[in-house]
Amino acid sequence: MKVELGPKNCLYPLPTILVGALVNGKPNYITIAHVGITEPAAVSLGMNKVHYTNQGIKTNRTFSINIPSITMVKETDYCGLISGKDKNKTDMFKTFYGQLKTAPMIEECSINMECELIQIVDFPNHDLFIGKVVATHCDESVLTNGVVDLGKVQPILFAMNDRSYWSIGKKIGKAWSIGKEFKK
Amino acid sequence: MKVELGPKNCLYPLPTILVGALVNGKPNYITIAHVGITEPAAVSLGMNKVHYTNQGIKTNRTFSINIPSITMVKETDYCGLISGKDKNKTDMFKTFYGQLKTAPMIEECSINMECELIQIVDFPNHDLFIGKVVATHCDESVLTNGVVDLGKVQPILFAMNDRSYWSIGKKIGKAWSIGKEFKK
Repeated sequence: MKVELGPKNCLYPLPTILVGALVNGKPNYITIAHVGITEPAAVSLGMNKVHYTNQGIKTNRTFSINIPSITMVKETDYCGLISGKDKNKTDMFKTFYGQLKTAPMIEECSINMECELIQIVDFPNHDLFIGKVVATHCDESVLTNGVVDLGKVQPILFAMNDRSYWSIGKKIGKAWSIGKEFKK
Repeated sequence: MKVELGPKNCLYPLPTILVGALVNGKPNYITIAHVGITEPAAVSLGMNKVHYTNQGIKTNRTFSINIPSITMVKETDYCGLISGKDKNKTDMFKTFYGQLKTAPMIEECSINMECELIQIVDFPNHDLFIGKVVATHCDESVLTNGVVDLGKVQPILFAMNDRSYWSIGKKIGKAWSIGKEFKK
């Protein structure tokens, strides 16, 4: 039986990421899970305007996406509890840079993407940052035959429904393929 | 050791959904996984302009998000293989409507969200549809103490990396909470 929940956003889980940006000249990291892919080469971050990081992204027009594994869930959640306004989070991780000199990345995360800001969609309380992926760095240990394997990445999945983090399960089928077995 | 993958989008997994829209007066469903949350009450769909569904969303300025479970993986993938241009997919599912009379929803999916289009961000080959969630319907069977439980929803997670679908794993911690255990 269907029940009505009101206008409740249930588009979960989404991957929990650490967004890196230079703010006032220093690397800062913030936990964000209201993310998306806007077109194959671009990503979006829905970030409340109160966050300290937003001004860094606006100033430098670059940011990084770092994907922590479930072994980093405490550090990851911590970065969402404490603002860079109040605490310098730089020392929590080993920072490195790639092509973009203003997109600090986290060595301990197995996937790091450098992004260039291409557009900001303005919402009353949120900035939607849309960025183009410029370069991706990855731990060799999460590849299987040269392809990123989520079973090895072990990303932290987020659901607002129960305000919880979840792990990934198993591979259940090939896209653009398993549907061929469907017969009506 | 870090390796460079080029400008590779690795922001996965994302939930695989069936987007419902009226196209030329008939319900149509398409499989989309390039989705996101743009601000807490709104969602985004990154949809290639070649899709049949896009015109229906533009005409009616409404759409639905339907979350299939892993038991529906064949039907779900099938809806991404075949265009509504070539085949009427209406009969694949039991359609129902809520408040919006132009946002057909799928009875068999445990979560259904009716959405009103608020903005289109135009990319060269993609429309990014941003919609506000107007009403959410849910199978009572996926609730735990009145809250949507992803362990019961069993969504189909998508990764482009290996062009595969994945299941969800286990709850690993509470957000805005487990980080309090972090001590540097």
